[in-house]
Amino acid sequence: MQDHDVVGIGNALVDIIGQCDDAFLSRHGRTKGSMALVEADTVKALYDAMGPGIEMSGGSAANTLVGVASFGGRAGFIAKTADDQFGRVFRHDIQAAGVTYRTAPAASGGEPTGCSLILVTPDGQRTMNTMLGVSPYLGAEEVDAALIGSGRILYLEGYMFDRPQAKAAFRLAADIAAKAGRQVAMTLSDPFCVDRHRADFQTFVRSSVDILFANEAEITSLYEANSFEDAARITRMEAKLAAITRSEKGSVIVTGDRMIEIPAAPVAKVVDTTGAGDLYAAGFLFGLAKGKDFETAGRLGSLAAAEVISHVGARPQVKLSELAQKAGLL
Amino acid sequence: MQDHDVVGIGNALVDIIGQCDDAFLSRHGRTKGSMALVEADTVKALYDAMGPGIEMSGGSAANTLVGVASFGGRAGFIAKTADDQFGRVFRHDIQAAGVTYRTAPAASGGEPTGCSLILVTPDGQRTMNTMLGVSPYLGAEEVDAALIGSGRILYLEGYMFDRPQAKAAFRLAADIAAKAGRQVAMTLSDPFCVDRHRADFQTFVRSSVDILFANEAEITSLYEANSFEDAARITRMEAKLAAITRSEKGSVIVTGDRMIEIPAAPVAKVVDTTGAGDLYAAGFLFGLAKGKDFETAGRLGSLAAAEVISHVGARPQVKLSELAQKAGLL
Repeated sequence: MQDHDVVGIGNALVDIIGQCDDAFLSRHGRTKGSMALVEADTVKALYDAMGPGIEMSGGSAANTLVGVASFGGRAGFIAKTADDQFGRVFRHDIQAAGVTYRTAPAASGGEPTGCSLILVTPDGQRTMNTMLGVSPYLGAEEVDAALIGSGRILYLEGYMFDRPQAKAAFRLAADIAAKAGRQVAMTLSDPFCVDRHRADFQTFVRSSVDILFANEAEITSLYEANSFEDAARITRMEAKLAAITRSEKGSVIVTGDRMIEIPAAPVAKVVDTTGAGDLYAAGFLFGLAKGKDFETAGRLGSLAAAEVISHVGARPQVKLSELAQKAGLL
Repeated sequence: MQDHDVVGIGNALVDIIGQCDDAFLSRHGRTKGSMALVEADTVKALYDAMGPGIEMSGGSAANTLVGVASFGGRAGFIAKTADDQFGRVFRHDIQAAGVTYRTAPAASGGEPTGCSLILVTPDGQRTMNTMLGVSPYLGAEEVDAALIGSGRILYLEGYMFDRPQAKAAFRLAADIAAKAGRQVAMTLSDPFCVDRHRADFQTFVRSSVDILFANEAEITSLYEANSFEDAARITRMEAKLAAITRSEKGSVIVTGDRMIEIPAAPVAKVVDTTGAGDLYAAGFLFGLAKGKDFETAGRLGSLAAAEVISHVGARPQVKLSELAQKAGLL
């Protein structure tokens, strides 16, 4: 029985969002636009130096599943929190968004719930500094086969490759989905993450991925291509279906025999790009799960991405189902 | 030496802000616009029922001190947190706002850092449900006499009367300030808080308060008056100086021989009234500390209140000093 449209597995993070200027990033050795994994002492130094923040639930795949639910889709999620304040925030927010989430928190006394210090510059770009905390410690028994089996599509977060136990959980989830005859979707997450795992990602995309999400920098890095066109050409041979986002240039959907260009949806002002890729994936996956054609699915992705970059925070602030209806896409 | 313009003492809280409709408030027995003290089980039930939230540092007097700092004033604060995630958020945010804050966190294992579930209805009204946690457990030795002595004005949060140990700290702080020849300011905080402590508040205002802050409901409750005019008349006899806020009607500054009406500053859309009174107090106190006349101080209060109700959250999102300069008030 397919109770869920999309089930995801990824990191459970609470975002701590602050504003800074480009000089702050340089001074602290941060690479603008990237996600860096950092240890507790680096988080402390950055946090001490940055201005006041606001806290909101985040996590890449988690944002995507919340987006699917906001479109009116049935979404499920698997990720590890600790039994602490941030863990309760994460759990509350994802459940309150209507996502099935039943992974138990880790017993207290160990690693805390993961968090990401997100520095937003005046141009709306986000630079993420993530302390994974307990997030990668997802046991095999916690990779909920019943939940995965209940979904049309399993969505996997590439960031999970950064830690051995999370990577094992990622692979196990993919195996469960494949055996249950479900589609497997994956996001490459971040160009530096691709750098760290290029060979593994190439093999996994070829062998196990039905729907690949990447942005231009990630897909170019994956295939060490000289240009976007070159990367797209290789993707047509390597991936069954890929949706490649290109910021204000929109996205390109790549299949074995077609390249479909999808325009970006208009945005009055880009406030904070955090979650743009996550929400594009939400719209595209929701569209596919509902049997929409690629172009409509891509337009749903553009619509959701445009909503999330128009405000601070990586989760939608309005019902995406209503936006989609107004845009004539549902 | 007066290093600080204003030093405050109050509760250290992290706000968890969510949207709801009026029916939700009724269903959960909440009184719209009020602050209710709740225990952990009520917080849990409300939190489980409400939609996704965002977390931001709050606390009434804390918001005021952050406002003073945003105007360019030198502010200090005394309040108790626990050594937990919310405690670190509170500490970071107030220090990052430029407020002197050196109260040590309580050792871990006891009560958590306090929080307030703030439910915002579509009309922008806020209904607060506060679990004080460790906040009231401020020891006498933590009432920092050097810090209080370094401020021109001590600002006291009426909410502290709700717990015996906090009330003792409040009284001790007032004594220290009086002995050091400092001015003592106080906010009545909430009409239900006034109901709980009417006789004590009346006595304290008469004996110890130089600058009283209240809104219309609070001052009417304090003197069990039949009308605002009646309350204002009694206030002229009882208080040395009072600033009474009246929402969109602006505020009235009451002295022994004058009543000065201050208009509200324009607001395009009231999004969330949380912090309106706190930020009014920030502007008024900053103005007084800088030697401005009552009318200018009141206008600084109106300006800060207008800024904070135009967005979600109880702390300013722009530099109030810049707003005040643009308005020709600094």
